[in-house]
Amino acid sequence: MMAAEVESSVTPGEEMNGSGNLMDFLDEPFPDVGTYEDFHTIDWLREKSRDTDRHRKITSKSKESIWEFVKSLLDAWSGWVVMLLIGLLSGTLAGVIDLAVDWMTDLKEGVCLSAFWYSHEQCCWTSNETTFDNRDKCPQWQTWSELMTGHTRATALLCFFSYQGTGAYLLNYFLYIIWALFFSFLAVSLVRVFAPYACGSGIPEIKTILSGFIIRGYLGKWTLLIKTVTLVLAVSSGLSLGKEGPLVHVACCCGNLFCSLFSKYSKNEGKRREVLSAAAAAGVSVAFGAPIGGVLFSLEEVSYYFPLKTLWRSFFAALVAAFTLRSINPFGNSRLVLFYVEYHTPWYMAELVPFILLGVFGGLWGTLFIRGNIAWCRRRKTTQLGKYPVFEVIVVTGITAILAFPNPYTRRSTSELISELFNDCGALESSQLCDYVNDPNMTRPLDDIPDRPAGPGVYTALWQLALALVFKIIITIFTFGMKIPSGLFIPSMAVGAIAGRIVGIAVEQMAYHHHDWIIFKNWCRPGADCVTPGLYAMVGAAACLGGVTRMTVSLVVIMFELTGGLEYIVPLMAAAVTSKWVADAFGKEGIYESHIQLNGYPFLDVKDEFTHRTLATDVMRPRRGDPPLAVLTQDSTTVEDVEALIKETDYNGFPVVVSRESERLIGFVQRRDLTLAIKNARQKQDGVVSNSVVYFTEDVPQLQVSNPQPLKLRRILNLSPFTVTDHTPMETVVDIFRKLGLRQCLVTRSGRLLGIITKKDVLRHMAQMMNQDPESIMFN
Amino acid sequence: MMAAEVESSVTPGEEMNGSGNLMDFLDEPFPDVGTYEDFHTIDWLREKSRDTDRHRKITSKSKESIWEFVKSLLDAWSGWVVMLLIGLLSGTLAGVIDLAVDWMTDLKEGVCLSAFWYSHEQCCWTSNETTFDNRDKCPQWQTWSELMTGHTRATALLCFFSYQGTGAYLLNYFLYIIWALFFSFLAVSLVRVFAPYACGSGIPEIKTILSGFIIRGYLGKWTLLIKTVTLVLAVSSGLSLGKEGPLVHVACCCGNLFCSLFSKYSKNEGKRREVLSAAAAAGVSVAFGAPIGGVLFSLEEVSYYFPLKTLWRSFFAALVAAFTLRSINPFGNSRLVLFYVEYHTPWYMAELVPFILLGVFGGLWGTLFIRGNIAWCRRRKTTQLGKYPVFEVIVVTGITAILAFPNPYTRRSTSELISELFNDCGALESSQLCDYVNDPNMTRPLDDIPDRPAGPGVYTALWQLALALVFKIIITIFTFGMKIPSGLFIPSMAVGAIAGRIVGIAVEQMAYHHHDWIIFKNWCRPGADCVTPGLYAMVGAAACLGGVTRMTVSLVVIMFELTGGLEYIVPLMAAAVTSKWVADAFGKEGIYESHIQLNGYPFLDVKDEFTHRTLATDVMRPRRGDPPLAVLTQDSTTVEDVEALIKETDYNGFPVVVSRESERLIGFVQRRDLTLAIKNARQKQDGVVSNSVVYFTEDVPQLQVSNPQPLKLRRILNLSPFTVTDHTPMETVVDIFRKLGLRQCLVTRSGRLLGIITKKDVLRHMAQMMNQDPESIMFN
Repeated sequence: MMAAEVESSVTPGEEMNGSGNLMDFLDEPFPDVGTYEDFHTIDWLREKSRDTDRHRKITSKSKESIWEFVKSLLDAWSGWVVMLLIGLLSGTLAGVIDLAVDWMTDLKEGVCLSAFWYSHEQCCWTSNETTFDNRDKCPQWQTWSELMTGHTRATALLCFFSYQGTGAYLLNYFLYIIWALFFSFLAVSLVRVFAPYACGSGIPEIKTILSGFIIRGYLGKWTLLIKTVTLVLAVSSGLSLGKEGPLVHVACCCGNLFCSLFSKYSKNEGKRREVLSAAAAAGVSVAFGAPIGGVLFSLEEVSYYFPLKTLWRSFFAALVAAFTLRSINPFGNSRLVLFYVEYHTPWYMAELVPFILLGVFGGLWGTLFIRGNIAWCRRRKTTQLGKYPVFEVIVVTGITAILAFPNPYTRRSTSELISELFNDCGALESSQLCDYVNDPNMTRPLDDIPDRPAGPGVYTALWQLALALVFKIIITIFTFGMKIPSGLFIPSMAVGAIAGRIVGIAVEQMAYHHHDWIIFKNWCRPGADCVTPGLYAMVGAAACLGGVTRMTVSLVVIMFELTGGLEYIVPLMAAAVTSKWVADAFGKEGIYESHIQLNGYPFLDVKDEFTHRTLATDVMRPRRGDPPLAVLTQDSTTVEDVEALIKETDYNGFPVVVSRESERLIGFVQRRDLTLAIKNARQKQDGVVSNSVVYFTEDVPQLQVSNPQPLKLRRILNLSPFTVTDHTPMETVVDIFRKLGLRQCLVTRSGRLLGIITKKDVLRHMAQMMNQDPESIMFN
Repeated sequence: MMAAEVESSVTPGEEMNGSGNLMDFLDEPFPDVGTYEDFHTIDWLREKSRDTDRHRKITSKSKESIWEFVKSLLDAWSGWVVMLLIGLLSGTLAGVIDLAVDWMTDLKEGVCLSAFWYSHEQCCWTSNETTFDNRDKCPQWQTWSELMTGHTRATALLCFFSYQGTGAYLLNYFLYIIWALFFSFLAVSLVRVFAPYACGSGIPEIKTILSGFIIRGYLGKWTLLIKTVTLVLAVSSGLSLGKEGPLVHVACCCGNLFCSLFSKYSKNEGKRREVLSAAAAAGVSVAFGAPIGGVLFSLEEVSYYFPLKTLWRSFFAALVAAFTLRSINPFGNSRLVLFYVEYHTPWYMAELVPFILLGVFGGLWGTLFIRGNIAWCRRRKTTQLGKYPVFEVIVVTGITAILAFPNPYTRRSTSELISELFNDCGALESSQLCDYVNDPNMTRPLDDIPDRPAGPGVYTALWQLALALVFKIIITIFTFGMKIPSGLFIPSMAVGAIAGRIVGIAVEQMAYHHHDWIIFKNWCRPGADCVTPGLYAMVGAAACLGGVTRMTVSLVVIMFELTGGLEYIVPLMAAAVTSKWVADAFGKEGIYESHIQLNGYPFLDVKDEFTHRTLATDVMRPRRGDPPLAVLTQDSTTVEDVEALIKETDYNGFPVVVSRESERLIGFVQRRDLTLAIKNARQKQDGVVSNSVVYFTEDVPQLQVSNPQPLKLRRILNLSPFTVTDHTPMETVVDIFRKLGLRQCLVTRSGRLLGIITKKDVLRHMAQMMNQDPESIMFN
């Protein structure tokens, strides 16, 4: 019995309505039906059902001919093809960016005489005269001052400075600042002129877009191009910013670019977002060389709708991207990871105390950074400051360059700094940080060096690091959010790594000098290698990154992939948990959510729990005292009435009811579709005039000839609008909006239409319940 | 304006209804209200809203006194405490199981004279007489035949066998079989007598439970105890099964056990399932020593509702479990991972061809296994066979033992076998598989051995492995699903590892003998170590496991954590993808989904896509021609009528309408709550008799004295039932059921109630659309 019924209903016919008719409608040459306006929210259910319709059509067509079958196969495989392309392009771009940044960062200090396109490291590698002891110095690489003393023309300039050594130093200093200003000026100008969306880290906007918001051009080709170029400039200028966040944006632009190759993705905003989620994973994958961490980052931090199929595809894209990057080999060490470390000693339980303290520091830093940065960005938004972005960038670059050059730890690029801080001191290490007093009788193998007393170099390094820490903390707050591409993973990690290394050296020296103390007695005999300061730097970096972004699992996995140390998961996790708890105690939102809120995007966070006792009736419009809800009736509204309604209101859609008296809901019609349909009918359909009656019913009654021809609009009517009763608790409504990705929801009582709740209403209500300004939610 | 309204509605009062009144009702001493019956589905939205109510209450109380504040803190921390306890207990249990299995497996062959509770390995480790060359042989360890020849009493038995060597072999063979039969008999008897739910792998049932189904006792204390004991017995008996799946079940039992400590989890089925998801992650974590893989397994394969908070907690539980296991150190090597391998050579692009072939093999094996196993299990269910589980286990154990003993690769435990197959042949390796012809002039370091020609030992090993492969393939099909604890990760991996190793040796020898062939020329010079057969075994294992379970990301991550080889992700992934595609081509369902279907559990798979064009009206009840929907009216039904309705029907709930004429829906009432409320009222409330009118309205009209006292039941009425219109496409309905975890949904048209769709209706409709028997869905 059931089978017969099902079959009869499968037959496509007049009976088939719901979203089915949306597709029939789309087949007609109506431009733009089913698309969304800029700065509006998409309807996930509608997108999903459009994709199912498309898929159904392809499947049924595929049985008709071999060509159609091949086409259906191509369609099924297009997802994988897009992933492959994203992986290849984002891996390539990341490699190019890495190489370019390397070269341009060194360009600030000097130039390679044998080939000007070589970075310092490459220059000395290719030189025959490089000795093992002094890998950084080779005759081919000349600083600007060295180069200039060779030329007579520059002598005049040098005469300006009295003593030759100071002169060279000051000249290098001066040129360093000039290059930095030049790079950052170029970056901010390019952004301003060609692609205003290329600024910032992009992650807040990508989160919003993935949650179903439309920002046209944000992931466009121009943004891709300009962001790639300006990212190189911004990083090379020595500002306190990283390339990791912007790389996610670049990867998402690649994703969007390749979406346009396949109508499956370009014409469906829901499917497009699946691709973008995977692209975000590829972005993190190349930023850190961490494919698994990238997938988890996309899942935990960025994505909104993440079905299992996307998980698998993201993993594929992330892997392809990571391998493309490895083939380019920008770090010259064939490693996939950015900071490869190898520690020789395990950690001890007692060390958890300093690790947890680093976690506390990370949480405090996160809070300070978020509060400070948001306050500064709000000031930029609301005062005159925002009108001079180029000036702001120039000033901040100038201050950064002036303060950074004298300190060796801030002069170099931040990722080099982190790399050095993470490293364990080997016997051959020439760094100042490894200037320990060696025991001359030592005959141990090279990789098992016991704890030693610190030499003068370490003490010098310590106070330089302390200065660098204060400098980084302050300048990063002002840098993030300027009108240039800027990520905050690397600066946050640098802050944590500096703090961690300082703590690590302190613990190490304490353990060396006081190994008879009870706490050290158990695990630190004299002559043993018991404390690894590099590990402390790693833990500190994780804590600070966690405090700012509030990532959890993905943070630990990224750190573990970054360094290859499966054994250090527990210290990393202890620090990450502490940091998150401490930071959460001061405010639930991470930096990305704070920026989303600052910009007023309609983002319904999956993590926020709504626990208030309000009901749907408290949130719906119209409120008590408001004019009644704007509705259409199924068979008594004229074209004129509809046009008047569209003109007078700015709602995105209108409920259709049986009659104004019964208020029984039969469907919902989108404003955009209604406008297009009426415009189309007026142009093409004879007899449709202003006083034609609009019919949303299945059958139109026989009318007298004197009456104008009716306009049948059932086809654009959504017959399955989402409804809740007025007594539904708001927590359920929020849950439904979140999980089903609704745009709006109608409220009924005993079958009568009472009102409507839109996503904007939900967000405003949530803001109000959290004592925030509901007017900060600006878009719908 | 809005703020005032919101505040007024926050005040708890008669206005507050929705789910709020459910809690008020629960405060009254009504036993069991809000609980579910066995073999029924839970309502996720209701559970969630109950938890929010509870949370709200605690928050508001916490401001009253310090004691309440401490209690609220404890409540907030209870989730972490439960995770810690789960990690500790499941890690400990896994360690104990590992140790016991080790000892009992060796007990089948012999005994340690110095301490009978030592396994073979431990026995020889503690012995001083063990030499490095022959670590397996020491005087303290005696096989049963050696032991018996020492005792005069056994001489009579030995006389039975003519030649001493053969006699000892046959005696060992005989005792091996006897021990195996004894262990398996004990296991199946314990399961049958004490805990019938302790059989199988448990993963299909856990998936079903996590999706919101109630199976009382499945995760109980008895199941935990018996499963732990019988798992040891079953694995030790030498049957072709693993302990990984059952360990997940054991960990979930631990989770359930600790849930009962906190009312937050024990009284809320939704929250309980969050804990169980994390417990499943801890189970996989200890099964393989793969914490990240465990979390991804729980996310991808097992869980249904997996909020981000659970992700983080799962990770914590998985890590605690893994570290507890490491402290117990059952493998004696301080490694977290089961099969630690270290390969010295990279893989080459050309090797992807055999890897993909292994993927195809894995897919075919998966299909064969699932079809064969399901056919056999169906036969067991439907024929007389199912009535003799003990007999079946004894027969299969007997056959396994008889066939396994003569072959050295099947005699040992399966995990040892896999470990040997994964290993690269070092210079000191004494295994038969590493019997290569060495170049006597070789002066290379030990870890860089070039490809060598295979010696006779390798060829013997090859045909023994081939026999073992056939044996494992056949016997595993019959073993999985018997009434003892049995996992299939290890047997599947063994099949793949054997096939992979055979292919690996073949490729290696081909490359050695034909290194002038074009394909080998590029990457395999003579005297180089270019092919690692152990890697092929690893890839084969991943392919076969993927074919059976259809895991993707979690599979790759588990394999990568299992072996510690970040560099081999691409080969693993290539094999896993191929295997999944091949297997999916023959049938979309993995082994767990197939078993769920076989058992008729109401499981709405997240992975299945519903693409048919049916509408809600095609699925809802009543159908055309059926009697009308059983409804209650808000103010005209008597107690008698309600009782009659409950008696006559077996629906789980009834819609409440304004009147039978208007059919306008006002709410939904659960059958269980209705029964309890009427029973309670009849007992405690004076004047409620059979012809009392039941009121679901807010106000009860003033009645004449002659009328019996009315029964007010608005408090048990759910005022926000979920509704869809009759034109809603079924794909949307399926999506809503899945994402919101509904039990039932009401269908309306223009505000009039038309019918109801339950989860069972949805599942039956889906089964029918996939041409399966809809009657196979048995529970609601």
